Amino acid sequence: MQFVHESLPQRVCFQTGEAAAAVQAEIERLGARRVMVMAGPDETALADLVTSGVPSVLRHDEVVMHVPVEVAERARAAALAHRVDAVLSIGGGSTTGLAKAVAMTTRLPIVAVPTTYAGSEATAVWGLTENGHKTTGIDAAVLPRAVVYDASLLRTLPREMSVASGLNALAHCVDSLWAPQADPLNAIFAAEGARALHEGLPLVAKDPTGLSGIELALYGAHLAAKAFASAGSGLHHKICHVLGGKFDLPHAQTHAIVLPYVLAFNAPNAPMAESRLAAAFGNSTALSGLQELRRTLDAPRALRDVGLEAGDIPSAVEGVLALSLPSNPTPLTTENLTALVRAAWAGEEAR
Amino acid sequence: MQFVHESLPQRVCFQTGEAAAAVQAEIERLGARRVMVMAGPDETALADLVTSGVPSVLRHDEVVMHVPVEVAERARAAALAHRVDAVLSIGGGSTTGLAKAVAMTTRLPIVAVPTTYAGSEATAVWGLTENGHKTTGIDAAVLPRAVVYDASLLRTLPREMSVASGLNALAHCVDSLWAPQADPLNAIFAAEGARALHEGLPLVAKDPTGLSGIELALYGAHLAAKAFASAGSGLHHKICHVLGGKFDLPHAQTHAIVLPYVLAFNAPNAPMAESRLAAAFGNSTALSGLQELRRTLDAPRALRDVGLEAGDIPSAVEGVLALSLPSNPTPLTTENLTALVRAAWAGEEAR
Repeated sequence: MQFVHESLPQRVCFQTGEAAAAVQAEIERLGARRVMVMAGPDETALADLVTSGVPSVLRHDEVVMHVPVEVAERARAAALAHRVDAVLSIGGGSTTGLAKAVAMTTRLPIVAVPTTYAGSEATAVWGLTENGHKTTGIDAAVLPRAVVYDASLLRTLPREMSVASGLNALAHCVDSLWAPQADPLNAIFAAEGARALHEGLPLVAKDPTGLSGIELALYGAHLAAKAFASAGSGLHHKICHVLGGKFDLPHAQTHAIVLPYVLAFNAPNAPMAESRLAAAFGNSTALSGLQELRRTLDAPRALRDVGLEAGDIPSAVEGVLALSLPSNPTPLTTENLTALVRAAWAGEEAR
Repeated sequence: MQFVHESLPQRVCFQTGEAAAAVQAEIERLGARRVMVMAGPDETALADLVTSGVPSVLRHDEVVMHVPVEVAERARAAALAHRVDAVLSIGGGSTTGLAKAVAMTTRLPIVAVPTTYAGSEATAVWGLTENGHKTTGIDAAVLPRAVVYDASLLRTLPREMSVASGLNALAHCVDSLWAPQADPLNAIFAAEGARALHEGLPLVAKDPTGLSGIELALYGAHLAAKAFASAGSGLHHKICHVLGGKFDLPHAQTHAIVLPYVLAFNAPNAPMAESRLAAAFGNSTALSGLQELRRTLDAPRALRDVGLEAGDIPSAVEGVLALSLPSNPTPLTTENLTALVRAAWAGEEAR
């Protein structure tokens, strides 16, 4: 048992139906009097609801996926021009990401109100895109000081997006268990997150407006993000990163398709991950638990259905092998990685 | 699922056999150049070992249980006189407590190296004693910035002290599950801590010098402290506090004796705690798991063996009832609390 684990400071408020009061309380705790509210155009109604008690001096709605630097620069300039003393973000990963970009340079505190299962609100990871190239980093100053989780804000999230975003969170849990900085403490978060997502996502898929399912999924997504931010990214995320970058495959579907193949690939050599996930899924094996969940959620099955060509497989394999993954439980070879990607391409049963 | 949970910032280094290197690295991370080393007279040899790479300007060995204010004042004055820029504590709860007393007023950062299972190193709780009265409080500045857990430092801890200190940690886990600020996040720590202590303590009892048992127990004690500091104290700690305060019963033994009676009292009305603990103990019920562990450890059984008189019971019950415990799963009455304390006094089988 040799590890170094860093806990980060954050207030986590789970207060279903009470976002406005909780946000007001957190803003008051910070002593903020000039708040910049960030929310994309689609979140205007939610933002109105949540900010009723907030001393807002600025509403910023230019939210763009992957946070282009020029978008970040405009947000930073607006924050300075309005002498803002806190940033309140209401939205998914892109909105939280923009708030983080502002905090990076201004050191302003963030209060985050998530409206998806992205999980960015629970990490100190930032990301910026310049000329199509995404840079990420870690800075304690970008970790939101407080997060307000209000399940009622996710009742309008479409079923498809809920499932995709939730399976992405589950991939964070699974991949954390063999990631480079995996340790007993982040493994607890990963296991508990997997348990909550396994329980919550079928409820959300059945009734996307049901609060108890959303609460479980939000709770699971929070833990998934904590686990992933602490443990780092493992084989699953490396493969999806290469597939997304080289072939522009859709993010969430790619994660949903690839996950069982990586689990089947690693589980035989990762007994602790296997037993934790099997227990979390309440199943005899981790893989059968994941596959049953994917069937329940009607998750996508084959990379060829989302744009990968058979001829792309060698290049994808080469791209993954070029990334160093010394901690992976099953050592990677061209052969076994090709078999993995080919099976995921064809949608064969993972085994 | 309505709760507010606050995570605190701390680096946790589990590095068996490598305390000196780990401490040096953590002191360097803080940029400290004038370190005050706190270690009681019994810890001199350990302190020499651990501080080999530390720029120490002062060794302070006046460590007293419960941190009397005059002892704290002398330590604070010494820190100021030597223009110290960090405090390194090597010892159990009293040593960590003294370092916290210094940090309270000086805001100096602490690096803690625990040599028992007390757990104070993982909390922001401080305690000071004046005229026989102990005051406790919470201050983020007293939370050690880094903790170095090195199991090899506990090989010299006597079996009796290991068992008592470890059962005290287990009581933190159990009582957290129904404490006033119990929430799903601190419940994860409590359950995992209980699992680790249940596995580790019998190994320590069998071979007090065996590193794998000590590692598990240290890990469990860390989680126990995190859970307890976050959730607050429940019925078990209120009872032990009253028994210790009114009748001067020995701390660790009192905890070890009372715990199964409180578990038997609350478990029927705390299904989540019951199922988490039963799973953590790998037993059909939480109570049978705890009792088997206590038998294995040869834990003390009756309050009458450690100094409580039968005639003290009504006064003890009155003292506990005077403390407000609205969150307790089983509502307290004079009758049911008397039955609990009487059974613990007699050492009857808890049920």
